[in-house]
Amino acid sequence: MTGRPFGEAFRAELRELLAWRRDVRHFRPDPLPDGTLERLVGIASLAPSVGLSQPWRFVVVNDPAARGTVRASFTACNADALGRLAGDRAALYARLKLAGLDEAPCHVAVFADRGTAQGHGLGRLTMPAALDYSAVMAVHTLWLAARSEGIGLGWVSILDPGVVTAALDVPADWVFIGYFCMGYPAAEDSVPTLQREGWESRADPASCLFFR
Amino acid sequence: MTGRPFGEAFRAELRELLAWRRDVRHFRPDPLPDGTLERLVGIASLAPSVGLSQPWRFVVVNDPAARGTVRASFTACNADALGRLAGDRAALYARLKLAGLDEAPCHVAVFADRGTAQGHGLGRLTMPAALDYSAVMAVHTLWLAARSEGIGLGWVSILDPGVVTAALDVPADWVFIGYFCMGYPAAEDSVPTLQREGWESRADPASCLFFR
Repeated sequence: MTGRPFGEAFRAELRELLAWRRDVRHFRPDPLPDGTLERLVGIASLAPSVGLSQPWRFVVVNDPAARGTVRASFTACNADALGRLAGDRAALYARLKLAGLDEAPCHVAVFADRGTAQGHGLGRLTMPAALDYSAVMAVHTLWLAARSEGIGLGWVSILDPGVVTAALDVPADWVFIGYFCMGYPAAEDSVPTLQREGWESRADPASCLFFR
Repeated sequence: MTGRPFGEAFRAELRELLAWRRDVRHFRPDPLPDGTLERLVGIASLAPSVGLSQPWRFVVVNDPAARGTVRASFTACNADALGRLAGDRAALYARLKLAGLDEAPCHVAVFADRGTAQGHGLGRLTMPAALDYSAVMAVHTLWLAARSEGIGLGWVSILDPGVVTAALDVPADWVFIGYFCMGYPAAEDSVPTLQREGWESRADPASCLFFR
């Protein structure tokens, strides 16, 4: 594993994966093959983590009652968000499909274990959120690995974190990062849904770059 | 860009990149070629973001006074962290090289713009930290793209976020995510530094997977 960098063909394909990734909200109902999630979590565990703390916690949600609580939280939070909009923007919001909770065969909640002893506290004394950020990078790693196999992932953030955390009975020092729908996409698209639907479009990357 | 998933050769190479990535703390001093950072930020801007908000803000730090403030904050925070340890653990910590601030030719601070209008607020009402998480995924995307070209990145979290933010004169609603050293690595290694140095080792991924 020395002699890197990687070749131009790989780099081009990596850029294509990044561009094509998508947040998937339309799933086919067929389940992931046995062992798939375990394998993807293994790859996700290669993500960077502060102090090698690996604080990501993947909670697979199969219990119908827990799924129902999450679904109800999404419905309530989404209605609240809609209620704050007016006019065309409200009409457009109401048309968006923002989660695949009903169809996705696999549901995973991700937490960051703020209390983990792994890593012996290194690097997180002044920035404890570095643990949360490590869990986010594990999610992103899982996302890319899944997509490279044709498996879609959709991030649901329109939820009450307290409600979801309580429903899943996890330790008190776990911070809720997000709730993820996984499964095979019903369709593929290289343009973000929100851009296709006229909600928002991508900014010029140069507008995110500053010099001091 | 339809007809995906990607092939097995690409997926194997992606896993290799993820495994080999490393947090780099030993840099050669030669600068990145002109335009490299702009190109990498363009790729990073393909990262997922809540509501297509693209809230990442990359601040390239060239000013010697600002770099000096960051360096001093690292020194103070690192000494404080060492002071909380005892015995063998303190001795081991003192031997670790935790940042490449002195050698890395390129310094980038990353923030999440909690006040951005882009995305029209979608998806972040109940979880405003989703903006921070989006910026983290842009960092991770930049990290992977850079590494695939042989460019190293090191995440410095042993800093006082308030000190760094003040030194860089950014808007008040920007949340500091991390400070990054970039440049060509002085060496390559497929084993995490903290594991090689005996600080911590990787956990079994199965220990991060739970079922409800």
